[in-house]
Amino acid sequence: MKGFKFNGIMAGIKKKDTLDFGIIFSEKPAAAAALFTQNKVVAAPVILGRERIKSGLCQAIVVNSGNANCFTGKQGVEDANKTAALAAKALNIAPELVMVSSTGVIGAPLPMDRIEQSIPDLVQTMDLDKITSFATSILTTDTSVKMVTRESRVKGGSFTITGVAKGSGMIKPDMATMLSFVMTDLDISSLLLQSCLKKACDRSFNRICVDGDTSTNDTVIALANGLSHTVLEDSDDSFEFQQCLDEVLLELSRMIVKDGEGATKLVKIKVQGAVTGEDALKIAETIAQSNLVKTAIYGQDPNWGRIVAAAGRSGAAINPESLDLRFDDVSLVRDGVWQGKEAEAAAAKVMQESEIEIVLDLKMGAASDWYLFCDFSEEYVKINADYRS
Amino acid sequence: MKGFKFNGIMAGIKKKDTLDFGIIFSEKPAAAAALFTQNKVVAAPVILGRERIKSGLCQAIVVNSGNANCFTGKQGVEDANKTAALAAKALNIAPELVMVSSTGVIGAPLPMDRIEQSIPDLVQTMDLDKITSFATSILTTDTSVKMVTRESRVKGGSFTITGVAKGSGMIKPDMATMLSFVMTDLDISSLLLQSCLKKACDRSFNRICVDGDTSTNDTVIALANGLSHTVLEDSDDSFEFQQCLDEVLLELSRMIVKDGEGATKLVKIKVQGAVTGEDALKIAETIAQSNLVKTAIYGQDPNWGRIVAAAGRSGAAINPESLDLRFDDVSLVRDGVWQGKEAEAAAAKVMQESEIEIVLDLKMGAASDWYLFCDFSEEYVKINADYRS
Repeated sequence: MKGFKFNGIMAGIKKKDTLDFGIIFSEKPAAAAALFTQNKVVAAPVILGRERIKSGLCQAIVVNSGNANCFTGKQGVEDANKTAALAAKALNIAPELVMVSSTGVIGAPLPMDRIEQSIPDLVQTMDLDKITSFATSILTTDTSVKMVTRESRVKGGSFTITGVAKGSGMIKPDMATMLSFVMTDLDISSLLLQSCLKKACDRSFNRICVDGDTSTNDTVIALANGLSHTVLEDSDDSFEFQQCLDEVLLELSRMIVKDGEGATKLVKIKVQGAVTGEDALKIAETIAQSNLVKTAIYGQDPNWGRIVAAAGRSGAAINPESLDLRFDDVSLVRDGVWQGKEAEAAAAKVMQESEIEIVLDLKMGAASDWYLFCDFSEEYVKINADYRS
Repeated sequence: MKGFKFNGIMAGIKKKDTLDFGIIFSEKPAAAAALFTQNKVVAAPVILGRERIKSGLCQAIVVNSGNANCFTGKQGVEDANKTAALAAKALNIAPELVMVSSTGVIGAPLPMDRIEQSIPDLVQTMDLDKITSFATSILTTDTSVKMVTRESRVKGGSFTITGVAKGSGMIKPDMATMLSFVMTDLDISSLLLQSCLKKACDRSFNRICVDGDTSTNDTVIALANGLSHTVLEDSDDSFEFQQCLDEVLLELSRMIVKDGEGATKLVKIKVQGAVTGEDALKIAETIAQSNLVKTAIYGQDPNWGRIVAAAGRSGAAINPESLDLRFDDVSLVRDGVWQGKEAEAAAAKVMQESEIEIVLDLKMGAASDWYLFCDFSEEYVKINADYRS
């Protein structure tokens, strides 16, 4: 991918000696689009980001983990501004072209001394090859780096999209997820980029759930620097780009759920035959968020009663007597009737897989929707009971 | 309390040798009121109960644990009807005066052979003193019996209210909780009883959360047999009765949350200074349901960032810069500003208590509301991963 550089270094923001400070730099100002959390408590970098994205231009993103710079008042916003200004100076670009992101503990002030000390090193040692260091530097409770690259062609030529994400807990994004950065060397306007990004997020980050909590720092930023010299020409082209972007974000979403705090299984719930799309989504979302469904899946138990009970409390129209329920290929309930012990044993076998698809067919209408979620283990509790200690 | 008899026996409905079949009997037909689950998937006993409560009269309630008789189709409704008919015959009363309740696994047929065999014994050995056996026979994952008795006076004389409940998981009632039965010897109409019961539930069972799931079997039934010969006279009197009923249901609610699956702490979240009552409730409910808040409390960590983040995603109006947050007497956030390490240490000490009150003051308006909830431990996951095995 042409014209991008990255870095990830140890700045001492986290307690442990791990990479915790990163940068994405584009050789020329890039067309930029972004989505932010809908939480009413928003982190300082989100406040700054909402302002800066208005110009549709961005050249650098500076990210720290270990501290969310959230609920830090006026000082927090000043710190976010100062971080951007320091980076801009070191990069010799306008401060308005720098965005910042933070993730980690809420409520503690950003350690500005360490950030100030680390910026020269961060900028001087940037390199295209250091994308993995960057992807590592933004992680918190994540256990794996999340990066996806796709190449594709439009009429004008070829282009590359690379997406990076972090996220493992506090995952039930509302317009965006924890943090994700998408880079492309395609030549595309910021307006079209924003519209494509919104659509792609609705089909990826907005369909995943680890624990039902929504972060105060959720941010997705896309940068297109045009350095492939491949220009988007018409609507067919934009369809091609959209598809490629969808793939990248969906794959990142799967990675986030798979790496959900304490998760052992990745589950896709598909709801079909609903009266409205809204109903299908409500049901899928309620099932994906049910602690009882999630613990049963952890226990490898095809406890369909809990799935049906969650659908029943979702507020959507359902008819218990017409519904079908499938675990992968095993039909466990048909027309509201349990299919017996053999079917249950076969479903129990499916539950031993690490990836499971559950299909709930309401047979009432033609609408469908889906959600990706993970199971719920003792490990999730351990991670979150000890997080700040 | 005059004119009631109880029983709880082993009928072999549960796998383990424990009490699993119970009865409440009133010497004369009692004025009856009831509230049922709002889940769209409802158990057979709820279908039957909604019909029978219309008469405003009930003389016996037969309850089994170990099997929810839910999602069992037409057979399930027939089984519920047959259970009531068999009990009515043994009691020599009209079948329409018998209600049934079930709690346990969803989707398995009720073992009617064992129920039929056990009914003679259940009826023949009833006694006023056996209320504890009854309260034990309705439990599932509960670790303690839940019973509360209050005596009070109205103009016409004295009366007694006794309430029994079960519930430990799948607790986020919507109009009612898992199962609760309230008996009084007061002489009161079924209409007034229904109105008092609704009000009392809104201030008790509808303000608690263990895990955010709503049961398909939720039922609260109140019986008033009038055998104290104390008659409710006017609205002052009904205020007295309401207060007494409120106390009984609130205490039962506290017991349910305290005995929440895997719970180690009982927490009251009070939200005050909200713009509307609806906002206050939304915020209290979202905090009470947040897995991140609940695991932090289990870890004895006053992680106020998670509380504020949950308030922020509740959809209610909040202003992060004006809010105060207290843990018991310790003020941790004032006007949106963290009160420093000493306050944090004091709050950490509060978190070691087994009962904690958290007060979130938004300082935007005059509305307030509250929720009772418990923490979230590894034990919850263990209980629910293994529930059916």
